[in-house]
Amino acid sequence: MTAKPVTPLVEMDRAEVIAGNGFAGQDILSVSQFNRENLAYIFDKAQAMRALVETDGMSDLLRGNVLTCLFYEPSTRTSASFIAAMERLGGSVIPITQGVQFSSVSKGETLADTVRTLEQYSDAIVLRHPEIGAAKIAADYAEVPVINAGDGAGEHPTQALLDLFTIQQELGRIDGLKIAMVGDLRYGRTVHSLTKLLTQYDVTLRFVSPEILRLPLVVMNEVIDAGIPVRETHDVADVIENADVLYVTRVQKERFVDMAQYEAVKDQHEITIELMAHAKERMVVMHPLPRVGEIHYAVDHDPRAAYFRQVRNGMFIRMALLAAVLGEK
Amino acid sequence: MTAKPVTPLVEMDRAEVIAGNGFAGQDILSVSQFNRENLAYIFDKAQAMRALVETDGMSDLLRGNVLTCLFYEPSTRTSASFIAAMERLGGSVIPITQGVQFSSVSKGETLADTVRTLEQYSDAIVLRHPEIGAAKIAADYAEVPVINAGDGAGEHPTQALLDLFTIQQELGRIDGLKIAMVGDLRYGRTVHSLTKLLTQYDVTLRFVSPEILRLPLVVMNEVIDAGIPVRETHDVADVIENADVLYVTRVQKERFVDMAQYEAVKDQHEITIELMAHAKERMVVMHPLPRVGEIHYAVDHDPRAAYFRQVRNGMFIRMALLAAVLGEK
Amino acid sequence: MTAKPVTPLVEMDRAEVIAGNGFAGQDILSVSQFNRENLAYIFDKAQAMRALVETDGMSDLLRGNVLTCLFYEPSTRTSASFIAAMERLGGSVIPITQGVQFSSVSKGETLADTVRTLEQYSDAIVLRHPEIGAAKIAADYAEVPVINAGDGAGEHPTQALLDLFTIQQELGRIDGLKIAMVGDLRYGRTVHSLTKLLTQYDVTLRFVSPEILRLPLVVMNEVIDAGIPVRETHDVADVIENADVLYVTRVQKERFVDMAQYEAVKDQHEITIELMAHAKERMVVMHPLPRVGEIHYAVDHDPRAAYFRQVRNGMFIRMALLAAVLGEK
Repeated sequence: MTAKPVTPLVEMDRAEVIAGNGFAGQDILSVSQFNRENLAYIFDKAQAMRALVETDGMSDLLRGNVLTCLFYEPSTRTSASFIAAMERLGGSVIPITQGVQFSSVSKGETLADTVRTLEQYSDAIVLRHPEIGAAKIAADYAEVPVINAGDGAGEHPTQALLDLFTIQQELGRIDGLKIAMVGDLRYGRTVHSLTKLLTQYDVTLRFVSPEILRLPLVVMNEVIDAGIPVRETHDVADVIENADVLYVTRVQKERFVDMAQYEAVKDQHEITIELMAHAKERMVVMHPLPRVGEIHYAVDHDPRAAYFRQVRNGMFIRMALLAAVLGEK
Repeated sequence: MTAKPVTPLVEMDRAEVIAGNGFAGQDILSVSQFNRENLAYIFDKAQAMRALVETDGMSDLLRGNVLTCLFYEPSTRTSASFIAAMERLGGSVIPITQGVQFSSVSKGETLADTVRTLEQYSDAIVLRHPEIGAAKIAADYAEVPVINAGDGAGEHPTQALLDLFTIQQELGRIDGLKIAMVGDLRYGRTVHSLTKLLTQYDVTLRFVSPEILRLPLVVMNEVIDAGIPVRETHDVADVIENADVLYVTRVQKERFVDMAQYEAVKDQHEITIELMAHAKERMVVMHPLPRVGEIHYAVDHDPRAAYFRQVRNGMFIRMALLAAVLGEK
Repeated sequence: MTAKPVTPLVEMDRAEVIAGNGFAGQDILSVSQFNRENLAYIFDKAQAMRALVETDGMSDLLRGNVLTCLFYEPSTRTSASFIAAMERLGGSVIPITQGVQFSSVSKGETLADTVRTLEQYSDAIVLRHPEIGAAKIAADYAEVPVINAGDGAGEHPTQALLDLFTIQQELGRIDGLKIAMVGDLRYGRTVHSLTKLLTQYDVTLRFVSPEILRLPLVVMNEVIDAGIPVRETHDVADVIENADVLYVTRVQKERFVDMAQYEAVKDQHEITIELMAHAKERMVVMHPLPRVGEIHYAVDHDPRAAYFRQVRNGMFIRMALLAAVLGEK
């Protein structure tokens, strides 16, 4: 599955921090490519996309462009989001989204060859792959822009962007906010990426998790090095009163050996209407979805429950990114 | 797979009988939503769609609209029909039609959450689901229109509409016709739905089936209560001479314990050119397809064989429904 | 899976050699339909498609047309190529490309019925099927044009066309060239089809293969009957110095009983930079892909490596064919 590069890979050559709005032709591989300046640019563009969808449903901005959605593992939500984004910009999609048997792959083709083949038909490639680093390899070989839609335990930058965009849209700002992350902070890829982006802002962070699922040392050190005020706790009750954002993630039962410990954790992390009674009047509850009980269904009726609006923001962010990398050709 | 509703479901709140042409924004869940008046409206629109396809191939009526086809079980015919219908109206499709592994579903997401997620990207959802009542649950949670494309032993309203539309198109009317249903009348969902629609017309019904596959009591009583003249028989030879419509369905071998009984049934139900020699000169043979021998392939050349035209009518009916629920936004 | 034809099939009735540019409404089933005249026509059109894609990305030539891609076995490359081709001509696609469970097929529907159903929704059908002769059966039953995208050990005419087009585009001509085919010449469907097309030109052919994978007698005799100068060899080193075209195919390990023999073959067939040092300055290396080592990755940087440009030519050829069969309706 991994390429056999002929020349040594130059680390992050094409994926360096992009200054200003110079996204045209660029890969989107990592949140580390984004600074406050180009985040503001993308968020502005995403807001314009919302207006466009709400008035006309679509535009012809990317007419004549074809996007390949190459998903080596299925992700209904993410592939549907990119497909809708491309179609609402007047472009077309080659959907390879079942993640099951790729004929060429089963014949032993490398990722590099698959990508170089598919780029012959298309103007950009969105890649989902179970292996960390796959998006980087694809980008090194492809001449068209590659957008990382998740590479295993690696990154999922468009998710982090939509999360941050949602905070900005819901609360009107990012600086000055108290943000609490809840749940599986150890394996939760979205938590790590969002946290990295937040270190560029003047925020306060709270991390709520069971002991065995605490934030990895390397991410925590980035937070500390950035001078962000931070605290960890085991109980969401400790943070509910002051949080402007409650970013909740799924805790997987399989992570626990001791089921009694799992049950205790569940009680300390579940977001209920009783818990929400202690929260600020103006705050938001977010979740990358799918959820399996971390947020009680009764909370859905609370106007502070932002997770479905968050999903919709994903489409606007992806429209903005597609327009940015493809639009100025 | 089923949702955990926070508030009790109001029975058929959004799915009440739709008066006139007020389809805009409505769900299409059941044939019980249709009366003679709005059936006439949909059939007029479907006829206009035929003209449109035959002259220009497509229109831009639904430009800017995105339809999610969410199929929890595969149905090539139905999904292809909806995709073609949407594309021929200038709209776009998010195809989730393999019915295999939905990543979110496999992670334990409820149908309600999946639907609320996908509606963030799309303007309507077509749902196929193996469980009865699934379309109703989806419609209760979704804000966009939901079209039921089959919910297990429940309903498949667009199939019933295309069946009735085919009768009207082929014979110029519905009132006054003698209609015979042949085959598996017990489990055949399409027979039940079409029969329900026909009770609104001045027709005569004949039901031809093996004893163990007779029409369920509840459907038969609806026919009788509507004052429709009706008779049951075991042999298609009893109805062939007078039938204006022969609606044939597949009898599954698996339904029989006694194979001798199955063989006898096969002989009494197969539509052959010899049998067709006894039929009226102006009548139609219909079948929801796929067939596996109920209608001999030689009959295909008979101009009264309407089953492939029936398939095509399905596209026109779905175009009409999509335009009706989405067009007047 | 095979149809039960009511009337005997007339051998190749609709698939006869097409004269001039009379492709409108025709099936594309076999390379035997093509002569130098209509090949020149298709190649001209394909070149125009390249210009169109490189300037505007797409046109509206096939607006209002719907193409069904019906793949009974998966082929990422071929289906993606047809999808991109149709979308870049302004048409729409019904993608049935996973090759897994077709609901109707699993219920016992014949290929003929499936095709007659899907043509109700679409203006043409691209068919991939594991059984030889399937495309012919589909074409006999369908009223819309059928394009063969590979029928088992049968033909894959669009691949042969794109191969020949690539030779013409890369070297400016076909007549006068020395063309060497390397690898599995026994089972390699693409080699057989390309060889057949080449017999219409004034070329010299060299066949390089292990003994057990030599060109079948029937294809060799066609070459000889056409008066083409031809030679066979076991070692690519014998042909490298004079070849204008090196057409390399994959040798499957499974074909060998004796692994020592396989290893020897591998060494004699692998295309390396060392080998390429002996080749002409102006020549091309081609491969139908996917490859698994027959061409060393270092060769990719050689400007004579044409295999990814060959992939892109596939899109242009398919655009040309779709426009030819659908465009003049």
